[in-house]
Amino acid sequence: MKKRVGVVLSGCGFLDGSEIHEATLTLLHLDRAGASSICMAPRRPLADVVDHETKRSVAGESRDVLREAARIARGAIKDLASVEPGTLDALILPGGYGAAKNLCTFARDGADAKVEPEIARLIRAMHEARKPIGVICIAPAVLAAVFRGTPVRPTVTVGDDTVTGRALAAMGAEVVVTPVTGIAIDERNRFVSTPAYMYDARIADVSIGIEKLVAAVLSLA
Amino acid sequence: MKKRVGVVLSGCGFLDGSEIHEATLTLLHLDRAGASSICMAPRRPLADVVDHETKRSVAGESRDVLREAARIARGAIKDLASVEPGTLDALILPGGYGAAKNLCTFARDGADAKVEPEIARLIRAMHEARKPIGVICIAPAVLAAVFRGTPVRPTVTVGDDTVTGRALAAMGAEVVVTPVTGIAIDERNRFVSTPAYMYDARIADVSIGIEKLVAAVLSLA
Repeated sequence: MKKRVGVVLSGCGFLDGSEIHEATLTLLHLDRAGASSICMAPRRPLADVVDHETKRSVAGESRDVLREAARIARGAIKDLASVEPGTLDALILPGGYGAAKNLCTFARDGADAKVEPEIARLIRAMHEARKPIGVICIAPAVLAAVFRGTPVRPTVTVGDDTVTGRALAAMGAEVVVTPVTGIAIDERNRFVSTPAYMYDARIADVSIGIEKLVAAVLSLA
Repeated sequence: MKKRVGVVLSGCGFLDGSEIHEATLTLLHLDRAGASSICMAPRRPLADVVDHETKRSVAGESRDVLREAARIARGAIKDLASVEPGTLDALILPGGYGAAKNLCTFARDGADAKVEPEIARLIRAMHEARKPIGVICIAPAVLAAVFRGTPVRPTVTVGDDTVTGRALAAMGAEVVVTPVTGIAIDERNRFVSTPAYMYDARIADVSIGIEKLVAAVLSLA
């Protein structure tokens, strides 16, 4: 029986949605490891639309998180609100600013970030069921915000960016620094993280980190 | 000295732009093989914008090919019109309908397809300089259209879709059928092709085909 892993997307493009390489490499390594991917995203507007050539926000343009995420998922995508945690063996959140803009408000509010209710529901249910959760790049911020003020206190990596690290620590997370090819495993909580493009990294190295994360998540599932 | 490989993108999303997995896997395997990628795209509107959830064309919405492609390239993208063939050792075109809608008009015009002048210029210059060109999925249609009515007669694979195969043959291409994990090598022309998502394929198998294509292109460069 194949393990069923939910992959939570947040748009399509690292500046306003899911980091495309991280999301694609997650799907690649899950398939290589014999697991099946169930892509999902919230149905709501992107917090903003960013021109990825100029890196500037585009005024007056609106795009839907789920529809844009469907580009990465080749159309096979579910509304996050319809996902029953019981149908999943594990969850993985790729990074990109979308995780910090559309899944929670970390990009704007830092340690005061609010979490999209449907992703908070899913993460809490997976954690209560002792199912593993993998978080890539900036996605550890979502975990930290979900469990802020609780005894969960996730141990995660977010690269070596001290501003981000301090904000996660302020939410109660324990931040460890790993190289881009490394992972952090929080055995107690069954959380696995890898920094990916938190560094100015090569795609081959990002792939190594995500391959390790996928293997660790599946071993805990 | 790293080999410099131009990666020609045509948007972001398989229904109106570049197939995201094929483009990402091309960048992955080039990096793994020690080559550098130079992403490029034409600066023009997408032929159409397609909602990837419903798979329907969206009326009244316009997006720019280069700006959308910049999502895959993480901002590091050149205008195709500014690219000097002498700066490249090889060229690779990932697939997706964007190759058949934005780089040429194959999706609409079949064997009568017209080619975007800047991509035609680049492909002809690379071929004249005996530099290899890799084409993935439906991108062999671009090659076939560029060399229609010439003695070049590319040998390529486009999966086992007979309608597409016949249209390429009508343009003078020789079409060979390979599995998704296979490649076709046209030694005379230094063209390499792999069918990728011309099949209803698994991403792990698409990756195997693209890895072989990248290795063959680099060995010819």
